[in-house]
Amino acid sequence: MTDRLSALRALMVEQGVDLVALGPGAHMAWLLDLHPHGDERPLLLCVSASYAGFLMPVLEAESARQHTDLPFHTWSDEDGAQAAFDALLVDAGAQNARSVVLDETMRADFAGLVQDTLLQAKRQFSVTTVGALRMRKDDSEYRILKQNALTADTAMRAAWGHMRAGMTELEVAELIRDSFKDQGAKPMFNIVGAGANGAFPHHQTGQAVLKHGDAVVMDIGGGLGGYSSDMTRMAVIGQAPDGYMDVHAVVEAAVQAALAAAKPGVKAHVVDDAARGVIADAGYGEYFMHRTGHGMGVEIHEPPYLTATSQTVLETGMVFSIEPGIYLPGRFGIRLEDIVILREDGPEVLSELPRDLTVINA
Amino acid sequence: MTDRLSALRALMVEQGVDLVALGPGAHMAWLLDLHPHGDERPLLLCVSASYAGFLMPVLEAESARQHTDLPFHTWSDEDGAQAAFDALLVDAGAQNARSVVLDETMRADFAGLVQDTLLQAKRQFSVTTVGALRMRKDDSEYRILKQNALTADTAMRAAWGHMRAGMTELEVAELIRDSFKDQGAKPMFNIVGAGANGAFPHHQTGQAVLKHGDAVVMDIGGGLGGYSSDMTRMAVIGQAPDGYMDVHAVVEAAVQAALAAAKPGVKAHVVDDAARGVIADAGYGEYFMHRTGHGMGVEIHEPPYLTATSQTVLETGMVFSIEPGIYLPGRFGIRLEDIVILREDGPEVLSELPRDLTVINA
Repeated sequence: MTDRLSALRALMVEQGVDLVALGPGAHMAWLLDLHPHGDERPLLLCVSASYAGFLMPVLEAESARQHTDLPFHTWSDEDGAQAAFDALLVDAGAQNARSVVLDETMRADFAGLVQDTLLQAKRQFSVTTVGALRMRKDDSEYRILKQNALTADTAMRAAWGHMRAGMTELEVAELIRDSFKDQGAKPMFNIVGAGANGAFPHHQTGQAVLKHGDAVVMDIGGGLGGYSSDMTRMAVIGQAPDGYMDVHAVVEAAVQAALAAAKPGVKAHVVDDAARGVIADAGYGEYFMHRTGHGMGVEIHEPPYLTATSQTVLETGMVFSIEPGIYLPGRFGIRLEDIVILREDGPEVLSELPRDLTVINA
Repeated sequence: MTDRLSALRALMVEQGVDLVALGPGAHMAWLLDLHPHGDERPLLLCVSASYAGFLMPVLEAESARQHTDLPFHTWSDEDGAQAAFDALLVDAGAQNARSVVLDETMRADFAGLVQDTLLQAKRQFSVTTVGALRMRKDDSEYRILKQNALTADTAMRAAWGHMRAGMTELEVAELIRDSFKDQGAKPMFNIVGAGANGAFPHHQTGQAVLKHGDAVVMDIGGGLGGYSSDMTRMAVIGQAPDGYMDVHAVVEAAVQAALAAAKPGVKAHVVDDAARGVIADAGYGEYFMHRTGHGMGVEIHEPPYLTATSQTVLETGMVFSIEPGIYLPGRFGIRLEDIVILREDGPEVLSELPRDLTVINA
């Protein structure tokens, strides 16, 4: 953890950043393995060249103290946060900070406290500092992510083994949740989209009943060791709907193209271009309305984002999803998603489950 | 819901506010009964005198469309949110807004998008607009909150009926959770703090075993109908520890003083003063380190906050907690908490469960 703080300070020097302020959330969890309760009371980790400490509601101090030795500037509901924050800035030597990095996920009023106190400071978000560091995973993170991917493989197979026509989407989701729990993982999310529901990329799993000829989008994730999985596979009940296999082949080709394009030194949009190009060439461009992928680490969605415009340069150790899709309104949707870690020679896919269509006996 | 939008517009005119921007969360839920998925993609409800509509990630549009007829300015990952937001501001007649209200709970980067686009606008948070409206509950809200309070009464009684020495705090918490679930409510949170653990106001319920002579703080809440309960009662295992009954009597007197002080037209700090005064007079001032209460509605913590410095004027229809406590390190903690709604002649306590100490047969 100390290594991560040192790495952050090195980037701050390089970029002329005087102060980094983080709220409760993923950045703080990554930097210090700290997960304080977050509510409307300003709680900030502040890092300068000479200081790292907390603006801390007195109510949280006792329990936070069990997890960190860093100094606290506590404040009570009675006094409010301003005076404690002013004193912290003095300790941090940052009362005249000119360049401040804010956690982009913190509450707007936490950000307001920092900005209104440091009126002369230029504000930026953490993408080139904490965000940049978080993108490159170390070996311990790789091992946890790999274990998570295999857990998801097992959960997906478990669902395939038990799902059948007549079940609802929610019942299928329950199979997945049960498998994650049996493996000691926490079910994090799942999208089960049957038939035409699959054509909504973010379909809310519901009471729709699986029937013969339905294609089923299954996008699942469970959490273990502070990280998670995220994988999408396709199943059909009994038999694929008309035209399905051709579209599945296009999406698979898009995945392959993205995998081939992802190399260290390449910009993230190049990977998106590759997947999108395959889909557009096949005539489905307008039916692929989301980005090709997102980074994954202590958060399920984090940088790098693989969009059509992203200028982020890919580096070894980055972990991200590759998940092109084609969504045909009123008919079906197809998405194939794998998490990869970028190696010198290209991406290593974490899952060991093929992306082939799985046919469920109706 | 339309009534709430009209009421908001009336306040905007009164206060010279050109634009209100809300993220996914409690303000939006209260205003439109909308609960869109919130992630890193900017999704904003924007309200001006002539316009109410959404900046909407294209990925969320289909599912959000099922819950609202308001116009969408959609944007894709490919294009980013800026152009769509610019177009929305034109439709809203707010491209030259001078006064903007931001949802204080929205992500800092959502707030950044609004502020960086409307550089000439003065920014404030929603406390005098949406926040002010949300504080006064209508009859339908009262009925749901009353039902939630009775659900918590039942859950507390259920726990008392089954807890005993030798159980862990987590096992007691499970009794409470089960009762909420049996009643069709969603367990939202609970603090079970046995013995010296009770002296941490936000103790994290754990593996500590209840033993003879432990005082147990039980702070519970479940959710039903989009609202929740929040109540704290005290139990002891077998026999109260030395000095317990005197301190319990002080906390009860503080509750009574706060109840007597809470009247329409009175500032919120007066209620805090009343409770704090009783506790300070008894010599325990330094052991009551949090505010006396918080508002409750679609959020468990929301305005009005009853702090030592709050200038908020209490009005009929406001719903808030009264929850003084005394926390004696290494010994025990005592908190007594009730939710009240303010009527013309003072507070109506929603719970029907006495605040007396409950003795569990060891």
